[in-house]
Parts: sequence; C-alpha cells; structure tokens
Amino acid sequence: MSLSSQVVEAIRKNCPDPEKFYPLHEPTFGGNEMKYTQDCVATAWVSSVGKYVDTFEEMLATFTGTKRAIAVANGTAALHICLILAGVKNDDEVLCPALTFVATANAIAYCGAIPHFVDSEMKTLGVDPLKLKEYLKSIAQIKDGECYNKLTGRRIKSLIVMHAFGHPVDLDPIVEICNEYNIPLIEDAAESIGSYYKRVHTGNRGIISSLSFNGNKTITTGGGGAIITNDEELGKLAKYITTTAKKPHKWEFYHDMIGYNYRMPNINAALGCAQMETLSDLLSKKKQVADNYKKAFAGIEGVEFYDEPSFGKSNFWLNLIILSKENAMERDAVLAATNDAGIMTRPAWILMQKLPMYKDCPRMDLSVAEDIEARLINIPSSPNLAGKSY
Amino acid sequence: MSLSSQVVEAIRKNCPDPEKFYPLHEPTFGGNEMKYTQDCVATAWVSSVGKYVDTFEEMLATFTGTKRAIAVANGTAALHICLILAGVKNDDEVLCPALTFVATANAIAYCGAIPHFVDSEMKTLGVDPLKLKEYLKSIAQIKDGECYNKLTGRRIKSLIVMHAFGHPVDLDPIVEICNEYNIPLIEDAAESIGSYYKRVHTGNRGIISSLSFNGNKTITTGGGGAIITNDEELGKLAKYITTTAKKPHKWEFYHDMIGYNYRMPNINAALGCAQMETLSDLLSKKKQVADNYKKAFAGIEGVEFYDEPSFGKSNFWLNLIILSKENAMERDAVLAATNDAGIMTRPAWILMQKLPMYKDCPRMDLSVAEDIEARLINIPSSPNLAGKSY
Repeated sequence: MSLSSQVVEAIRKNCPDPEKFYPLHEPTFGGNEMKYTQDCVATAWVSSVGKYVDTFEEMLATFTGTKRAIAVANGTAALHICLILAGVKNDDEVLCPALTFVATANAIAYCGAIPHFVDSEMKTLGVDPLKLKEYLKSIAQIKDGECYNKLTGRRIKSLIVMHAFGHPVDLDPIVEICNEYNIPLIEDAAESIGSYYKRVHTGNRGIISSLSFNGNKTITTGGGGAIITNDEELGKLAKYITTTAKKPHKWEFYHDMIGYNYRMPNINAALGCAQMETLSDLLSKKKQVADNYKKAFAGIEGVEFYDEPSFGKSNFWLNLIILSKENAMERDAVLAATNDAGIMTRPAWILMQKLPMYKDCPRMDLSVAEDIEARLINIPSSPNLAGKSY
Repeated sequence: MSLSSQVVEAIRKNCPDPEKFYPLHEPTFGGNEMKYTQDCVATAWVSSVGKYVDTFEEMLATFTGTKRAIAVANGTAALHICLILAGVKNDDEVLCPALTFVATANAIAYCGAIPHFVDSEMKTLGVDPLKLKEYLKSIAQIKDGECYNKLTGRRIKSLIVMHAFGHPVDLDPIVEICNEYNIPLIEDAAESIGSYYKRVHTGNRGIISSLSFNGNKTITTGGGGAIITNDEELGKLAKYITTTAKKPHKWEFYHDMIGYNYRMPNINAALGCAQMETLSDLLSKKKQVADNYKKAFAGIEGVEFYDEPSFGKSNFWLNLIILSKENAMERDAVLAATNDAGIMTRPAWILMQKLPMYKDCPRMDLSVAEDIEARLINIPSSPNLAGKSY
C-alpha cells in the first residue's frame, strides 16, 4: 500500500466517515456558549465593556497562572502590544523563528522593526537554544546594557518564541540566553493554551506573552486573543494601551499616548467564558485524539506521529506527522490524497524568509526549519473526534 | 433659572425619568439580533468566515450605495487600512481635523505618518474647505505630480475628513481641493451611517472610507467597522490585506505582502445583519429625538440645538448643543449639572494638538475648532428615547 493510503487509513481511526469533511480544527460548543451570548444580546451588553470581558480575563489569568490577562481583538493584536511593551521601536531587530505563522513576523513589522529569523529544533519545532547561543556569540554585542547586531548595527530588542502547534519550546536555556544578552523574551502562545513547560503554563516565562482564540484554536471567541503577564505594571499598561489610552474622567477625552482599539467585545468574551468552563474537558478529548493517532501511526514505516517533549505537556492543538527524510518527496502526494479524501491536512507554514516582504531580513542558517517544512503535515485535531478510542 | 437647569429641563423632554441613567447612546436591538447570533452559536460558525460576514458586507454596500464594503474589526482598523491603500507611507503627512476622536490621528501614526491638523467650520463641525484652500496655497507645492509641504519637505499623501457626530462635511469644495493638489481623500464616516451629502451617502466621495459599529454607534456589531469604496480594485485589496494577505490555495500559506488580522467575526456580523434590517427605523427614531430636542431648546437663550446643514441629511448620531460665546464659561457647569442628574453629556474631544503625542505636529490656525471645543456639548441620543413626541 502507498504511503498516502496508509496515512489516510491511519487518520480514519479518528475520522471514520468517508462521506464527511474533516477540517483541521473546528470549535466545540458544549457548555454555556448559547446561554451567555443570549444574555449579552438580551441585555444589549455586547460591546467593549461588560462583565464577560472581566470574567474572561480573570479565568485566563487563573488558568495560565499569570498575574494578569487582558482580552483583545485577536492574537496578532496581542503580539503587537507585547512587542510595544517590550520596548521595540522603529528600526530595531526582533529575533523570531522562521517556522511560524506570518502574524509573528507581521506584528514585528507593525512596530517598524525588522524580523531576524532563527532556526528551530526538531525536538520542539521551536527556537533551538543551542544554535541561537552560538549564533549570538558571533553576531551580538552588548553596548550600554543593550544587545546589538554587529553586522547591521541595529538594536536587538526582543526574542519571540512560538510554541508551534501547541508543543512547548525548551524555555530554560532560552531564558538564560535572554538574560545573558539582555533581550526581553516574548512567548507567542497563540497555539498553546493548555500546554505546559515543566508544570508551568506556557506564557509565564516571557516578560509578556500572547494567546489566540481564533475559530481554529483550542478554544474560540469568534475572533480574539489575550495578553498575559506576571508583571502587574505591564499588565496595567497593556489594558490601557489596548483601550485607546484614555485617562479615566467623567466626560473628558484625554489620551496621553498613541493607543489602540484592540478591545475584545463582550459578546465574544461571553463565548470565551463558556469555552474556558469546558477547557479541561476539551484538552482531555484532544489528548485522546492524539493518543489514537499515536497508536494508528505506530506501525507505519516512513512516517512518525509527533509526540510531546519529555519536559512538558502539549495541548496537541494541531496533531502532526513527520515524514522520514526518504519520504520527504511524498509530502504533496500525501497532502493531495488526504484532502481528496475529505480529510483536511496542510504542511507547515512557508518559512518566513521565503515570503517576498521578508526575503531580505537578517537570518541565521535555517536548515532545520527547512527540513521540518519539507516533512511536516498537520492532521485533523478537533476535540469532537474523540470518543472513538480503540 | 440658571442655564444648567434650563438645559436639564430641555433634555428631560427626551429623558423624562429622574431615577434613570441616560447614556449618550446605547444599542437598540429590536430585530433578529437574537435569532442570528443563536444561529451562529448553534452551528459553531462564529469565526472569521461565514454567511453573515458576506451578507453584512452586501447590505452595507447596498445601503451606502458603494461598490464594495469590507467588514473589519473596528473603525480604527478600517481607517488604518484606508490610509495604507491611499498610499500613505512612513514620514508622509496626512491632513486631518484637529476636532476629531483620537482614532483618526492614531491611524495616521500607525502608518508612521504625521498628522497635520486643519481647522473646522461652525457650519458643519468638519474641515473648512475655504480655510484649507487658503492654507494650502501658502504651504503646499506640487512636485512630480505629488503634493509636498514646503515647510517640512514632507509629502502630503492624504486628507481625512470626518463627519463629526453624524453631520456631513461640505464635500464638493473639498473634493475640488484634493483634485487640485492631487491629495487622495478619505472620509472617516465612523459616525455617519445614514448621513447624506446632497442625496449621496457619506463615504462615497473619498477614494476609500471607513465606518464604525462600536457599541455607542447608530448600529453596533459589538465591536466592528467597515471599509467602503467605489474602486473595485481597492475593495479587493482591502479584503485581501485585512485577512492576512494570504493567496488562496488548498493547503499552502503564501502571503505576498504585510497583511493584517482585521477580520470581523461571523457572530459580530450576525448582529450587524440584524441591525441593518432595522436601520431605517432606528434613523427615523433618531430624527424624532432630534426634532424633540430642537423644539425643547428653541426657547432657551444662550444655547442652540445644532441642526443638520442645508445641503445634506444628518443621522443625528450624537445630538449636540452649542453654548453662545457669552455662555462658554458655563460649559463645565452644564456638564456637571446634567451628569449629576443622570443625563450623560460630554464636551467635544480635546483637540488633537493638545494631546502630548501630537503636540509637535504641523497645524494651521485652529481658532474655530478651539471655539467649537469650548462650547459644544453632546446630549443623550439613543433611538429608544423616541416616541415621546410633544
């Protein structure tokens, strides 16, 4: 049997109905989603202030174990504000993985800053700390307490790590590097709600971090995101700057900095509250889906189910398989066969340095990211696929 | 009786209950808001793609008489994209009124451009075309077909006009100036859905224009906005750039420019569809509220109800009164008396050049805007205040 057929067969363990279309990830509404959104519409409290926004923020802070969570319009907006609050300015460089969704690089560009692409490691799919350390030794220097790129003369003002598909990056050595070079760390945790690094939820080690609740994520608010941080001052500032930076006053409109309209409306936060109530259940269902895949792919030569790292816990947001090097040329055939069978699959994102607007950005050797891009395939991962354990 | 007491008494014609708090503007849900949002939640189609987004965009284009409408996250996002598509780049100048909500200036700053503040006229509360024409004669010059500020050397790449509180700006002479100086015109129609300039809906004369559906607007989607344009190419590009600039492909993630995540989620668009169905009714109710105020304030010395201009039709988004020059010093007393009586009122926005981040921006004489700021007071204007005609 061809590799493509074997992959289709394995995925069928979670996606059994040949008549059905299986998206990569769809929302699961099994709680109070209807009740809370009805409440918003009935009371006409649908907009940017409301009890669900406050409650959602509290639930997020509690769940992630951070001191403050700020609900915003989406994950891109969250990351944009993280960068601003990390002090990124026009013409700075920001280190970020080449293997990421385009929003990571775009958020850097919104600041007028330049993405500087770093390689990933196969062990986590995220930033490779060893390789980064070696690289910084050769290109970075500290001047007046700040890190500069010797080659471009530009300040390196932040490192973004991204927990790809929900798999946590190896944070300890990364934090060490950031401390050594005085580079503020931001965790792009858009894909990793429910993922843990050494028993601590992702997003806790960055000075400020972002979450996403887009429709394809583990939980959704329609569109939405959040900023999380353990720095209460940064948290206050994040709330202020995402709500137009208006000084509280009974009637005056005084703003003392360039603010943003990045609020999450109350009706979207209402969905978020309901989703948070069911998050533990969604995560166990997703774990079951992953376990099923693990068994289903165990016997297939030339392809491997990607498991969580030993040091952490993944939310298995989007399950993925990695083709063996010998089978890399089969990737598009597998993608075609699965999609033709009504099973949505997709490769990793095209690496950032291959996109026209980022092709001239500085970068290190990206051979591992290239290798991952050539062999990775995401497969359907919705919680509602669970319950068919075998 | 003091002026403050007379004002309270006049407002009581629309806001009769002394025990109630009357906000400036609250949402009125009298149609299919519940039904459509329930449909989204029941089907789990809440996110960035969905039938309500498409329908809402069609309804907006039809209602405004424009060729294309693109629903986005909010009015600020819409204006940001209008500026990008008008060609505004880093270090350009953009002419805009000093008398506006801070989002207008912020959207310019997001482009790395510099707001250049122009004066308003009492007749419209918007940009004064005569004064602008005289000003440009003294500071502007055309080089290689583009307009430059002779004093700063910077390109002037756009003019934003804003239909303040729903009152249409005098567009004909403004369009003439823009043509003469080759300055692309953008209409910030955030406040003016249902407002017309010479029988044409506001937003049609800019090369591209913005709307807002924030919770305090005439209709609301929780948070939301739209871009409208009669240029189909710009419209296509606006849709593309607000949805991450991703080339359509079955599985590949190829983006060829810096895009934005400015989508409006389907559940918010569902509210929008229901609101659009009732918009005509909301507008007549708002007209009735305005007519009531007009009568109520007719007999009061020292204060004038601000009516629509002879050349157009206002949606009376936020009704307003203007104190006579002699009574300007009473403004804060009137604000205090009304707010203390449970009647929310507020002054005009603090002029942009008075905010610390915009204090050094170029500007013309702003004496009329200063005068308006000193004497204008917004008063409660929700459609649900109607029905008490007297």
